[in-house]
Amino acid sequence: MSNRVFNFSAGPAVLPLSVLETAQRELVNYPDAGMSVMEMSHRSPPYEKIHRSAQARIRELMNINDDFTILFLQGGASLQFSMVAMNLMWPSRKADYIITGSWSKLALKEAKREGTINVAGSSEEQQFSCIPDIKTLTLDPNADYVHITSNNTIYGTQWHQLPSTGNVPLVADMSSDIMARPIDINAHGLIYAGAQKNLGPAGVTLVIVRKDLLERAPDSLPTMLNYRTFAAKDSLYNTPPCWSIYMVDLACKWLLDNGGLAAAAKRNNDKAQLIYDMLDQGDFYRGTVEKSSRSLMNVPFRLPNEDLEKKFVSEAAKLGMQNLKGHRSVGGIRASIYNAMPREGVEALVAFMKDFANRNG
Amino acid sequence: MSNRVFNFSAGPAVLPLSVLETAQRELVNYPDAGMSVMEMSHRSPPYEKIHRSAQARIRELMNINDDFTILFLQGGASLQFSMVAMNLMWPSRKADYIITGSWSKLALKEAKREGTINVAGSSEEQQFSCIPDIKTLTLDPNADYVHITSNNTIYGTQWHQLPSTGNVPLVADMSSDIMARPIDINAHGLIYAGAQKNLGPAGVTLVIVRKDLLERAPDSLPTMLNYRTFAAKDSLYNTPPCWSIYMVDLACKWLLDNGGLAAAAKRNNDKAQLIYDMLDQGDFYRGTVEKSSRSLMNVPFRLPNEDLEKKFVSEAAKLGMQNLKGHRSVGGIRASIYNAMPREGVEALVAFMKDFANRNG
Repeated sequence: MSNRVFNFSAGPAVLPLSVLETAQRELVNYPDAGMSVMEMSHRSPPYEKIHRSAQARIRELMNINDDFTILFLQGGASLQFSMVAMNLMWPSRKADYIITGSWSKLALKEAKREGTINVAGSSEEQQFSCIPDIKTLTLDPNADYVHITSNNTIYGTQWHQLPSTGNVPLVADMSSDIMARPIDINAHGLIYAGAQKNLGPAGVTLVIVRKDLLERAPDSLPTMLNYRTFAAKDSLYNTPPCWSIYMVDLACKWLLDNGGLAAAAKRNNDKAQLIYDMLDQGDFYRGTVEKSSRSLMNVPFRLPNEDLEKKFVSEAAKLGMQNLKGHRSVGGIRASIYNAMPREGVEALVAFMKDFANRNG
Repeated sequence: MSNRVFNFSAGPAVLPLSVLETAQRELVNYPDAGMSVMEMSHRSPPYEKIHRSAQARIRELMNINDDFTILFLQGGASLQFSMVAMNLMWPSRKADYIITGSWSKLALKEAKREGTINVAGSSEEQQFSCIPDIKTLTLDPNADYVHITSNNTIYGTQWHQLPSTGNVPLVADMSSDIMARPIDINAHGLIYAGAQKNLGPAGVTLVIVRKDLLERAPDSLPTMLNYRTFAAKDSLYNTPPCWSIYMVDLACKWLLDNGGLAAAAKRNNDKAQLIYDMLDQGDFYRGTVEKSSRSLMNVPFRLPNEDLEKKFVSEAAKLGMQNLKGHRSVGGIRASIYNAMPREGVEALVAFMKDFANRNG
């Protein structure tokens, strides 16, 4: 513990220490199994128990009803950019995309290979400093779905009010804010999320999909690109990424033990507010996001100049606060403060920010 | 250690104990990183070092020259069934498949979605008890590639002499015998392997591909299904399955520390021979595979009747020898004895086989 750093990485990202300690303790010899989770047949009872436990805990945490199925896939959100379009863009072969940053644009690029896309809203002209006003969206009532990126890691924006899509299913890339707060599952048709920010290590992608939407895909899709393959076999059609799913299960247990998503949202709000208060109280630090669109997960900000930003990142690292450099495409500073970032980490950062501003302001 | 079992699972499968112990020691706090490998940004220096190390060790172990590139993908061999065909079945849209078991058939099924497939050989009429005689293959000189499954986990057969494919690239699914023996990389155009048998845990798929073949795929392929995406960014286009790659790196180090693939092949031969000698020396056990096609990785055999087979599996499990039940599609017994199965495990199995036959023969 003593020499662990505060890791502000945007992803893969910090995991709860107690989760890591459990994984460490069980690594060579999972209780009563005589082997590591990494050595278990995916068809063996101890692994199947882990698999079902992860599904059940996700269902409990996110309050997911039986209209939805929970899938474990591989390939990250990037593969979902294609799979969503391949599986759901039927029968109209049309979809609405709302563009709020680099990841939305990549999702759009892949969807365009599969059908006709309407950009129903974009904050690109505002340099992605906000989420588009939902009143300005040009949604197509005949679209097969509407796609949003619920949180934008690079720009530090987050949807705080969902667009009304009527009967058109809403598809959300929640890679960077899944389980950061309670959501209304019934407002969504499909949710996908790479695990490596809020859920666990890289290597597993969570897909939560309304069952009726599974029927849309044509049988001609490659087997491994058809959600039905995974739904029919409960994500055990082929060998799943067992270890990553085990880690997701442990992370979900940690969330449940700590009050579920309502409590997580409170902690996340409190942590983010500590930094936003600092940004708002003087001239030295400058937030880059409109207040109403601020993310609770990724807080980007600027200093008076780039030399000071470099100095800030370097001094923070020496104090055990790592990965505070902004994304290479935008520069500046970014503090990613996912579920597992302890409040002490944020307090240490804010104390350092205050001290750094005093010394350099 | 003391309460670990001998795990004869066909995959995911046994890993070297020393590898697991290293992973356990480093899990919470990777040396000098202040965090777990599971928490590292894939763009951070410590993770990049692991990534390059895994690639370099694979290259060294398999004696891979610069004509080839080494990729880390996700989705298992099952996704490669499609990706190989999507990327390599150009310009003729024709390929040869040699069918040696269930996995070949699944590869064939996906390839048929992408082009015209010639079944150039099959041992299905022999219930997959052998590899087809290479003199009988009906290879098409204009095929874009020839596909084989180098080792068949369910039926326990293995290619011991490669077909001559001339200028037609040979593609091999080596999921279950990768790094079990030295191979001639230049005899191959592409090799793929899910990691979870001989290389590490589930969650990463190794692809080794001749660089010139990367140029075949059309730009219209989805980004995540085009090998060029991974080759251009050294498998860091999006977040790779970092932990699984770390485990592969440790497993490769273990192989290198123990004499490389020539030494591994000797150990694997010796282990397999212990069981095959037992099958050949009496009537109680009956091997199901032609001698010239016997696998060094998976040894299937039958007992005089199914009741005895059940008793065998159950008694063996009580003695700490687990997962000896044959695949549900063929029944019987199967001992999977990958690289990491210690000789002591095989000796214990053979001693039990002798005793069981004495008591029940």
